[in-house]
Amino acid sequence: MAAPPLRLSADLQIDAAWVVCIEPVEPLPAHSVIVNNGVIADVLPTAEASARYESARHVELSNHILMPGLVNAHCHAAMTLLRGIADDVPLEEWLKSRIWPREAAHVSPQFVSDGSLLAAAEMLRGGVTTCSDMYFFPEATAGALRQAGMRVHLGLPVLEFPSAYAPNADAYLQLGFEVRDRLRDDPLVSFSIAPHAPYTVSDQTFRKIVTFADELGLPVHTHLHETATEISDSVAAHAQRPVARLDALGVLGPGFLAIHAVHCDDDDLARLARQSCHVVHCPSSNLKLGSGIAPVARMQAAGIIVGLGTDGAASNDRLDLFEEMRIAALIAKGAALDPTALPARAAVAMATLGGARALGLEGKIGSIATGKDADLIAISLESPEMSPMFDPYSHLVFAAGRADVTHAWVAGRSVLDQRHLTECDLPAILRMAKYWQEKLRDPE
Amino acid sequence: MAAPPLRLSADLQIDAAWVVCIEPVEPLPAHSVIVNNGVIADVLPTAEASARYESARHVELSNHILMPGLVNAHCHAAMTLLRGIADDVPLEEWLKSRIWPREAAHVSPQFVSDGSLLAAAEMLRGGVTTCSDMYFFPEATAGALRQAGMRVHLGLPVLEFPSAYAPNADAYLQLGFEVRDRLRDDPLVSFSIAPHAPYTVSDQTFRKIVTFADELGLPVHTHLHETATEISDSVAAHAQRPVARLDALGVLGPGFLAIHAVHCDDDDLARLARQSCHVVHCPSSNLKLGSGIAPVARMQAAGIIVGLGTDGAASNDRLDLFEEMRIAALIAKGAALDPTALPARAAVAMATLGGARALGLEGKIGSIATGKDADLIAISLESPEMSPMFDPYSHLVFAAGRADVTHAWVAGRSVLDQRHLTECDLPAILRMAKYWQEKLRDPE
Repeated sequence: MAAPPLRLSADLQIDAAWVVCIEPVEPLPAHSVIVNNGVIADVLPTAEASARYESARHVELSNHILMPGLVNAHCHAAMTLLRGIADDVPLEEWLKSRIWPREAAHVSPQFVSDGSLLAAAEMLRGGVTTCSDMYFFPEATAGALRQAGMRVHLGLPVLEFPSAYAPNADAYLQLGFEVRDRLRDDPLVSFSIAPHAPYTVSDQTFRKIVTFADELGLPVHTHLHETATEISDSVAAHAQRPVARLDALGVLGPGFLAIHAVHCDDDDLARLARQSCHVVHCPSSNLKLGSGIAPVARMQAAGIIVGLGTDGAASNDRLDLFEEMRIAALIAKGAALDPTALPARAAVAMATLGGARALGLEGKIGSIATGKDADLIAISLESPEMSPMFDPYSHLVFAAGRADVTHAWVAGRSVLDQRHLTECDLPAILRMAKYWQEKLRDPE
Repeated sequence: MAAPPLRLSADLQIDAAWVVCIEPVEPLPAHSVIVNNGVIADVLPTAEASARYESARHVELSNHILMPGLVNAHCHAAMTLLRGIADDVPLEEWLKSRIWPREAAHVSPQFVSDGSLLAAAEMLRGGVTTCSDMYFFPEATAGALRQAGMRVHLGLPVLEFPSAYAPNADAYLQLGFEVRDRLRDDPLVSFSIAPHAPYTVSDQTFRKIVTFADELGLPVHTHLHETATEISDSVAAHAQRPVARLDALGVLGPGFLAIHAVHCDDDDLARLARQSCHVVHCPSSNLKLGSGIAPVARMQAAGIIVGLGTDGAASNDRLDLFEEMRIAALIAKGAALDPTALPARAAVAMATLGGARALGLEGKIGSIATGKDADLIAISLESPEMSPMFDPYSHLVFAAGRADVTHAWVAGRSVLDQRHLTECDLPAILRMAKYWQEKLRDPE
């Protein structure tokens, strides 16, 4: 008589009605994901999983989609404290009379830590497991997001003008590298140098950034071609469009992320493609500020990898990648008068593997694949809003909302369990937000 | 010693952190709404309410916005059973190979009743208390929506081509009037004649519709100028754009609702404005089908009343007016490159009083005003996603989602209580949706 086959031990088995791996693209019905030491160890039919693995924990999601955690490829998490503080006003007034005075009066490590913790609670409840951030006091951001259990891609901000954080560009750079030295042993934190924008950073500073980025192997990420004014101002000041200027300065390359890239002509796109740059598309923010609609279909046709970002809550109000997926797909179709533009599968890929690639993290996250970290989320199909269901991708983009996210894991650790944030004290976060609400109501 | 002042008796007192009446526009902090016999009896500061009224029921919503129920001014509720069955395909293929074959094989009173019940569950959970519908077997739609507790504006459909419901235009009209005769005593049901579109209804039938509409005092509502093709086809067939053709036929007037109106030139808008017509804007559907973006700002500037609609779930996937408010505001700003276009207050007005006016129901619903029916909804502010909060209108449009709706009343009757549907058997509805999911998977 043959001995029963040995079962492999594992930390976690998650069964789901559908597993959407991203690569390969086809959704897998009734499959399970096996997690061990925070890493995806196997993806196999549920019918075989329990025979092959003996897992310490077993989560059965009988009417759910399991997919990779969403990657928010551009955020200013701390600005969540300024959510909805000024809408429906022109960009210049928005910045100069609503946002900047409050930042000048209030931004501190505590502001950044509190705002980022509030952002983390929102993002995790909405299935975002990785956040790429750009703001003052980045160590406070990283601390808050990590406290909540998130993965962080930390932009080290660089500006010419002084702030509570730093007096000048050299000091921003120096402070950033010190932050990196202190946090670099955390495997869930990665870094980029984040010059704010071509109009707030000088040629000289961009040259230094190129040198440091090369030496340290860091990506560079910057707001770029967000508005038409930014481009005409650059032509007036530098006799060049910003993309051409950064190209001439040596900033463009495979580690370069252009945030927004709303206004791009053929030459801009050709330069970004030739240098293997990446783009982060932030459709809600671009619409709300009246900046326009980025030509995502043309970027993808040119071979540019595109990730998806929420931008900060002061210009979007929702750190919600379900909303960004839906809006990205809808406006691509509406603007091109073509219902086949940006299909649901492409939108989901943008919010997961596209973002991971843009951040240089595709070896670790962005898809469900053996050997990648177990950053996973589950979406419930058990509601009238999600019924009936014919195609998981279609429902993820066009029907689901962030409130349908029930579970999230980061590197195998549970951070959201049946909508309960396991690493956050939610009542304390809500009390903290109320405190800031009173404090920030007046501009000064 | 003076006797204590007499308190007036009422059925219901609802206290809310904020009451958004729509008219007047300013949000009222810490106010209460008093309801008696299904009608709004008073709106007053909470501090005074309990002294003045003795209510049989008292609902305290300490961290909520109370506002009028949302008015979905255009839907095909039964098509909820086809949610997400075909995306990302051209309109003609979508209709001819995905939607029509399934409708031909499956549409029946049972299909319409089941789909409409599923739609009602979704709409009520999302704060939609009134639905204007257009579909075959309208009596089945009305029955299902009324069963769930909703208010219904029932389009009596008219087409030239035969369906399971009727063999020809005259029969559609006849059946519609019979439905009206049977349902007209229900104060929560109102009616319109609903010719499907200029390209599916003949001149002769439109003339009959004008006569009946005048005789019976019924509004007329039709899909109009949804795509550029519809217009060029009309120019080829009738030597007129559809709006001009309907104008010449006498169809336009204060009771006329144009659904979509995406492609409108100055003459189209001038005709609609001159005849005091209304428009229903369905932004998600127009984007998803690649139809384009309706010129809402120009319509409003021309004095045209605009309501907001979800369209059916086969072309939108969400019967969600929070999403439509947000997308309407965002694309108006993005398309005009103007962040001041369609402010939050205008978007909320469109989804409430605008829709009520478009349907001719502004005497009964659309705002919180003494004497109107108590169609009310509450939205929770107690979440990280809604914190902090500086402006109720901003949060309703840009931050809130349908999942934040906690309570709904229709004519004073509770239909959603702490997210529990009081008039629906939700497990039974989900089982029914699963049944149709299996049945509809194949086209035939």
